[in-house]
Amino acid sequence: MLPNIRIVLVQTFHPGNIGAAARAMKTMGLTDLVLVNPLQFPDAEASRLAAGAEDLLESARVVGSLGEAVTDCVQVVGASARLRSLPLPHYDEPDGMARDLVEHAAADPVALVFGRERSGLTNDEIRLCSHQVSIPATPEYGILNLSQAVQVLAYEVFKAWRQRPGSGYLPQRPEEERAPSREQLGHFHDHLTRVMRESGFLTQPHARTEAQLQALFARAQPSRKELSLLRGLLASLEQHLPERQG
Amino acid sequence: MLPNIRIVLVQTFHPGNIGAAARAMKTMGLTDLVLVNPLQFPDAEASRLAAGAEDLLESARVVGSLGEAVTDCVQVVGASARLRSLPLPHYDEPDGMARDLVEHAAADPVALVFGRERSGLTNDEIRLCSHQVSIPATPEYGILNLSQAVQVLAYEVFKAWRQRPGSGYLPQRPEEERAPSREQLGHFHDHLTRVMRESGFLTQPHARTEAQLQALFARAQPSRKELSLLRGLLASLEQHLPERQG
Repeated sequence: MLPNIRIVLVQTFHPGNIGAAARAMKTMGLTDLVLVNPLQFPDAEASRLAAGAEDLLESARVVGSLGEAVTDCVQVVGASARLRSLPLPHYDEPDGMARDLVEHAAADPVALVFGRERSGLTNDEIRLCSHQVSIPATPEYGILNLSQAVQVLAYEVFKAWRQRPGSGYLPQRPEEERAPSREQLGHFHDHLTRVMRESGFLTQPHARTEAQLQALFARAQPSRKELSLLRGLLASLEQHLPERQG
Repeated sequence: MLPNIRIVLVQTFHPGNIGAAARAMKTMGLTDLVLVNPLQFPDAEASRLAAGAEDLLESARVVGSLGEAVTDCVQVVGASARLRSLPLPHYDEPDGMARDLVEHAAADPVALVFGRERSGLTNDEIRLCSHQVSIPATPEYGILNLSQAVQVLAYEVFKAWRQRPGSGYLPQRPEEERAPSREQLGHFHDHLTRVMRESGFLTQPHARTEAQLQALFARAQPSRKELSLLRGLLASLEQHLPERQG
């Protein structure tokens, strides 16, 4: 699905922005970059700012017109900082745009188009788009750098993709940081209750105290690793306690 | 609320990243920038990349330690590309982090902390944070440029802020692009029905045809401007039609 999502940069002026845009794409799993009449490409500054994403620059296609870049696409979204001047359907929220784009990309190529740094897209270019999107920003200073705009929209596209059922995306999290099962939590609370009784802190069954402590640990959301740390501490304290009758 | 949200950059190596981060902040309504031991600041490259956000660089505070930068904050979120090595509460999703941060910022200062370009935050610095956040990215190449990470998290913070009830934020949209009222739509459909009858296309009341056309225009979601264009067209056609009895 992500291979069907193309980023198109129209007549980019600063080569560094092409490199930074390539890096932004790659972090979000996008690889299809098309450049329409870039001022200067390939370029050393572009490669420097691509950092680990030089492969995207190497495989980028350079074409002579926006029409050529998007001819096979079923949805073409123009990113614009300006108030839309043409009555294209407009997304006020990038996340809504990203969900639609990912939906279409399941079957067909789609494109996100970014205009020139200073002047954006021409009216003729906007007519080649099916939709427009703006990144909501403060009215006082609403103009994002080109590669920053690519990063934000690519981030939303990747989010829309990974949140689809069946994407298979999992946050990277080590086993020990997983949340404990109800059974593991139950063993911990049993152990805690035993230690409280053995220490003489609880002289008789006292459901309210136990419930308060359960609520506290529920709020703290201990990981498996932390729970095993706490159980180790309880076991160590227990060695110094006389056995009491519950 | 937004003035209470501080961005802290720890020992930034490339001055250009400081400038690009300032611009990213400003587009999202954030103004409080604190620099912990920047390698070089002030700097011409930082100012160049700040573009319209030089005022943030001028008002930035430079301090000697992260502790000093966050001492008055009630929530301190460290941004990290790496798997968390310390058991701080961790946000897997920037939007959840942003909602909590904005919530706290209603009353007190909070901070988002970004580490060094290559090595991030030290363990001692992570201990000064109350939480960590990661930007979900592709496992193959998950490392965003520093200013890109600032842009994504600032974007989520601004989104969380403007989506709160009472933020007063409205997408910038000209009056003519507002959706028409039910009354305006009703007048349009009455007009359309009249023209269909006068033209002889409908010879008797025919609710099904009218309902189909209403459904079509509902899907097209015409703006006020487009609706008035359509009504102008109907009026122009009407002049050529004989009056019929409905």
